[in-house]
Amino acid sequence: MEVARTIQTVRKLVKAARAKGRKIGFVPTMGALHIGHISLMKAAAKRTDFVVVSIFVNPTQFGPGEDFKKYPRPFDDDLEICRKHDVDVVFAPTPQEMYPAENLTWVNVEKLTEPLCGQSRPGHFRGVATVCTKLFNIVTPDVAFFGQKDAQQAIVIKRMVADLNMPLEIVICPTVRQPDGLAVSSRNQYLTCQQKKDATLIYKSLQKCQEMVESGVIEAKEIIGQMRKILNQIPSAKIEYISIVDGETLENIDRVAGKVLAAVAVKIGSTRLIDNILMDAGKE
Amino acid sequence: MEVARTIQTVRKLVKAARAKGRKIGFVPTMGALHIGHISLMKAAAKRTDFVVVSIFVNPTQFGPGEDFKKYPRPFDDDLEICRKHDVDVVFAPTPQEMYPAENLTWVNVEKLTEPLCGQSRPGHFRGVATVCTKLFNIVTPDVAFFGQKDAQQAIVIKRMVADLNMPLEIVICPTVRQPDGLAVSSRNQYLTCQQKKDATLIYKSLQKCQEMVESGVIEAKEIIGQMRKILNQIPSAKIEYISIVDGETLENIDRVAGKVLAAVAVKIGSTRLIDNILMDAGKE
Repeated sequence: MEVARTIQTVRKLVKAARAKGRKIGFVPTMGALHIGHISLMKAAAKRTDFVVVSIFVNPTQFGPGEDFKKYPRPFDDDLEICRKHDVDVVFAPTPQEMYPAENLTWVNVEKLTEPLCGQSRPGHFRGVATVCTKLFNIVTPDVAFFGQKDAQQAIVIKRMVADLNMPLEIVICPTVRQPDGLAVSSRNQYLTCQQKKDATLIYKSLQKCQEMVESGVIEAKEIIGQMRKILNQIPSAKIEYISIVDGETLENIDRVAGKVLAAVAVKIGSTRLIDNILMDAGKE
Repeated sequence: MEVARTIQTVRKLVKAARAKGRKIGFVPTMGALHIGHISLMKAAAKRTDFVVVSIFVNPTQFGPGEDFKKYPRPFDDDLEICRKHDVDVVFAPTPQEMYPAENLTWVNVEKLTEPLCGQSRPGHFRGVATVCTKLFNIVTPDVAFFGQKDAQQAIVIKRMVADLNMPLEIVICPTVRQPDGLAVSSRNQYLTCQQKKDATLIYKSLQKCQEMVESGVIEAKEIIGQMRKILNQIPSAKIEYISIVDGETLENIDRVAGKVLAAVAVKIGSTRLIDNILMDAGKE
C-alpha cells in the first residue's frame, strides 16, 4: 500500500494503474475509520481493481462553532485499517496541499442542500460538494463509494455528478449499524457510555416509523409524533429535526407514498448524530 | 471529421483517441466561428493530437434581456470551417442534451466575477463556469484553449481549474484583430457599416492607454480620462466600463504597476462589445 501525501503522487499512482487497465475505485473519508468505512472499502474492492482511500478532514465543510479542531485524527490506526483491507493507495493531503491559496471556486447544489442538515449547517454541503469535486478531479476514479448514513450528502453528490457530467459512477452503500442498532459514526466516540445507550433510541425511532408505514399509516405528522415520543426519552437530547421527505427531492411530504426518506438529527450532549432510513411506501 | 450530437458519442470518440495515445485538445465555442476561433483551433492542432471543438450556445450564461435567441447559429458554415482546419470532432449538443433536468448544481467563482462584465451581467460567469465544467467533464481534454479577448472569462476559468484541481491545462491565445484593430467577435455581425467603423475606436482607446503607460503615465484616472475622450467620439456609444485593474486579481488600481489589464465594454446601438489589453507596466 502506498501513502500519497501530494496530489502529484496520487495522480502518478492512479495513472500507472489505469495504464495497466485497472478500474479505479475511490472511498473519500475524513479518517477515524470504522466498520462503515470498511464496508465501503470492501464494496470498492469488489467493484473495482485499484482502491484509493482519501483521508482528509476538510476544513471547508465545518461551520465556525463545529468540531473541526477536535475531530478525531487517529492516522496510524487508519493506515493499519486500510492496509488490512487491501487498499492500494491512501491519499492523505495536508490542508495546505488541498487549499494552497484562498479558495474562490465553490460548487453549490441548490434546493437539495436547503432542508435537513442544511438548516443548521449553512455552507456544509457547499464545502462537501467542493472538496468532492476536487478529490474526484485529483483521483479521477471510475467509481466512488459513499454511505447511506449521510443520506442528504449521498443525494447531493449524486445530483452534482449528474448535473456536471462528472465522468464517474456513484455507489451508495447501506448504513452499517452496531448490533444495538446505533449507526456507526466517527462521532460516536465523543459519547459517554450512557449516551451511547441513549443514542440507540435514534434508530428505534426510525424503526417505529418503518413499522407505522408498513402497517398503513400515511400521515407524516402522526408518524413524526410517535418518533418524537421515543427521542424525547433521551434525557440530554436536543432534537434538531425529525423529517419525512421525498426520497429524491428531499421536499417535505404530508402523506407518505413512493420513495420516502425518514431522517433524524439529534444532539446528545454536545455530539450531533444523524440517522435515516429510506423506505418504499408504495402508492398512496 | 465526426459530428457528435450526444455526450455518449463524443465520450466514445475521445476514449478511442486516448487509447491510441493521442493528446486531446479542446476548443469550446458558441459557434458563429471566425478567425479568432480558427486561431484557437490552430493552437490546439499544434499543441495536441486530437482536436475537439464544441459548438453550443449555452443558455445559462445569458441574462434575461440578452441576445440568447438572436445569437447567430450558422451551423453548416461552422462545420465547414472546422473541417477545413483539421478538427477531429465537433461536439454540438442540444440544450436538452446538456441540461436534461433542472440544473441545480452551479460552479461559482467568487471575487473575480464581480467587477467588469460581472457588474452588468449577473449570473453570466456562473453560467460560463458551470458549462465549462460540464464540457471539461464530457470531453476530458488534456488542454483547453480560450481567447484573451474575453479576458475576465480567461482569468475565471484558469482560477476555477486551479481551485478545483481539474486535470487539464488552460491555454489563453492572443486576441485576433481585423487590420483596422477591431477585435474579432461573433457579435460584430450585429453592427452596421458605420458602427463597425466607429467600433475601431475601442482598440484605439486601448492603444492610447498603452502609449500613456509606456511613456510613464501611472495615474489610472488620467489614462481612463483620455480613453473616455476617444470612446466619446462614437455617436451611439454607451460606455459600460473603462477599467484599469490588476491583471490577476481584477481589482481596481489607482496607479499602474506590474501586470495590468485595461478593459473596455461599450454598447454601440444595441450591440455590446468588449476588448482589452494586458500590459506589463513594470515596477512603480
